[in-house]
Amino acid sequence: MTDYRVKGFNLAGLAAGIKADQKKDLGIIVSEIPASVAGVFTRNQIQAAPVVLDRERITGGISQALIVNSGIANCCTGKPGMQDAIAMSRMAADRLHLTPDQVLVASTGVIGPRLPIDKIETAIPRLVDEARSAGFEDFAEAIMTTDTVPKLVTRQAALNDVPFTVTGVAKGSGMIHPDMATMLAFICTDMGATAPQLQGILKTGVDKTLNRITIDGDTSTNDTTLIFANGRSGADIGSTKDEALFSEVVSDVLAELARRLVEDGEGATKCIRIEIKGARSEASAHIIADTIARSALVKTALFGEDANWGRVVAAVGRAGVPIEPEKLKVSFGDVLVFANGCATEDANGDRPSNVLQQPEYTITVDLGIGAASVSVYTCDLSVEYVKINADYRT
Amino acid sequence: MTDYRVKGFNLAGLAAGIKADQKKDLGIIVSEIPASVAGVFTRNQIQAAPVVLDRERITGGISQALIVNSGIANCCTGKPGMQDAIAMSRMAADRLHLTPDQVLVASTGVIGPRLPIDKIETAIPRLVDEARSAGFEDFAEAIMTTDTVPKLVTRQAALNDVPFTVTGVAKGSGMIHPDMATMLAFICTDMGATAPQLQGILKTGVDKTLNRITIDGDTSTNDTTLIFANGRSGADIGSTKDEALFSEVVSDVLAELARRLVEDGEGATKCIRIEIKGARSEASAHIIADTIARSALVKTALFGEDANWGRVVAAVGRAGVPIEPEKLKVSFGDVLVFANGCATEDANGDRPSNVLQQPEYTITVDLGIGAASVSVYTCDLSVEYVKINADYRT
Repeated sequence: MTDYRVKGFNLAGLAAGIKADQKKDLGIIVSEIPASVAGVFTRNQIQAAPVVLDRERITGGISQALIVNSGIANCCTGKPGMQDAIAMSRMAADRLHLTPDQVLVASTGVIGPRLPIDKIETAIPRLVDEARSAGFEDFAEAIMTTDTVPKLVTRQAALNDVPFTVTGVAKGSGMIHPDMATMLAFICTDMGATAPQLQGILKTGVDKTLNRITIDGDTSTNDTTLIFANGRSGADIGSTKDEALFSEVVSDVLAELARRLVEDGEGATKCIRIEIKGARSEASAHIIADTIARSALVKTALFGEDANWGRVVAAVGRAGVPIEPEKLKVSFGDVLVFANGCATEDANGDRPSNVLQQPEYTITVDLGIGAASVSVYTCDLSVEYVKINADYRT
Repeated sequence: MTDYRVKGFNLAGLAAGIKADQKKDLGIIVSEIPASVAGVFTRNQIQAAPVVLDRERITGGISQALIVNSGIANCCTGKPGMQDAIAMSRMAADRLHLTPDQVLVASTGVIGPRLPIDKIETAIPRLVDEARSAGFEDFAEAIMTTDTVPKLVTRQAALNDVPFTVTGVAKGSGMIHPDMATMLAFICTDMGATAPQLQGILKTGVDKTLNRITIDGDTSTNDTTLIFANGRSGADIGSTKDEALFSEVVSDVLAELARRLVEDGEGATKCIRIEIKGARSEASAHIIADTIARSALVKTALFGEDANWGRVVAAVGRAGVPIEPEKLKVSFGDVLVFANGCATEDANGDRPSNVLQQPEYTITVDLGIGAASVSVYTCDLSVEYVKINADYRT
């Protein structure tokens, strides 16, 4: 079994009765000492109360705990919702002997209903008491909604011979699309770093990982990524080189979390990398990658394991970025299926279909008009996705 | 039975063997005399051979026939594909004793394969011979792909006491999104009009009808709308007032065709009007309407008859248009479900669900920050949509 522990962090997760079915729905992360903190949040203009609260609270750069519930998003709940978010942090702070502004809050679930704050109040003492270094799995389970598996990633490395750990926990499933391409992701590390250092590292990491995945093209109102660094490993960022090394480890954790979010996308049966090459700019490559990654017609064909490259070509053509159709090349895995404005000979054999039967593969689009490239991850659109989302609230 | 006939137009549709299952797949429209013609085409940069050919041919403003096949899109077929499109028009022209440039061509179906031009050649003599004024139904059937019903609309009106007819035929189903929001739509009228008049009338009509519907957000490579006016009614556009009257009839036909395309969208069980009010501009209202109309999460909730207004609010928030969340109001039918940043009391009762059980209804979003408004039509995203598109080529 993987050891996810990070020095000085204790976690817990339990069923507080927010969800109907006795599933875990309340989690906490506590650092034994104040930690540097940074965050990246949804760009949706409709923002849940906890997002608004955390944005404000992380400006101080220090935090010592995070309380998270699943089942209800505490979004579109007006002033009472904000009072609930503040109350939730105050209840946790009281039990932890902290001030409320040292405690961050996150919520995920259905938009609209109020939080059952009495149930949360009842559960908090036990939640705080149960927090332990080996609590990552319980916490990961407590933040799940339609996720089918908890998502935990840990990496160990050493800085100037001092070992340190970075562990990330995330929940995703639906309503996932840049920006920000996740519902919730939290990173704990025992590295020593300042809040501005963390902010830069987190932003860089998120931009090339969580901001490059799509499940269904919908950006949530609650997307929150936070990183807490308490310095308990004794390692400390001293130089630009140190920062680069640490940044790489954080990005690696984020990348693996991102991949797992796609893999476990609602109803997903495939995890597909869309690689755009030969673009005039990274921005234009991103727009094209995104158009393919979101196309319902492409995604249903991938679900059907149908090498329908025409839908990929059509998506490229409607993306709104100038292209030269004659220079366009499309490959499924290593099988070139479209070039010089026509299907290749390989397009009609078994080879493209064989690629699409794999659980993970790459679709490469070479625009042939520049040197920029970009990769994004997407999943297929399945019958199960529709069923999950048609019945989500019932 | 509705009489779709238009003076001086003869049509036919038959099974030429392009589709595997003996379904009609080849259609023709012939005007007894040269007709004024205008067209609006897909803005996808990947354009099928017939689209490229027609764009060029309508510049002359005169056409006398249109040959259309379904089953194969003749797109991404390179130079041989263009030769096929030209050959198809020449074969029809020969039999009709016209020159090829008087004959337009359209195709719809799978992207990639070459047309079975020998089968088309074999079928053309019979197709031309069978063309008759009562052939609209056969033609409408011949252009269907995943459509479940043929789409025909006719309107009769009088201009200065001279009666005239406008009949439209369309096929849609999937890959439908502005611009241009249809696969194929053809209008025949016995009104007398110049090509420039027709072009203006068609553009105006399409902008407020076919460009305001979405099935799945995918814009096809083959979208083509053509209008043919042969003047055989004796009515003729003389004044601006005449033009306005005629334009209204054409727009009415296009609007009804658009509604039927959504109603028969792939797997659709609902036809939903998304109305945006109180926007700062029509353009921004359109962006928001479009974001809601395309949201997989909104569309699956509508399929599930789940009044999940939170997903509508989230879609508004991520559309990229500045809004003021506190001023936002959302209604399902005439039931206000969201206002002042929160759910209304009605949001949780049976009333919103009752609205969503109807086959047709309106979702109204009042931004409360301006005077502009816009309406678009969309359908739900069903299990059947996924099944149709996962198995389309098999």
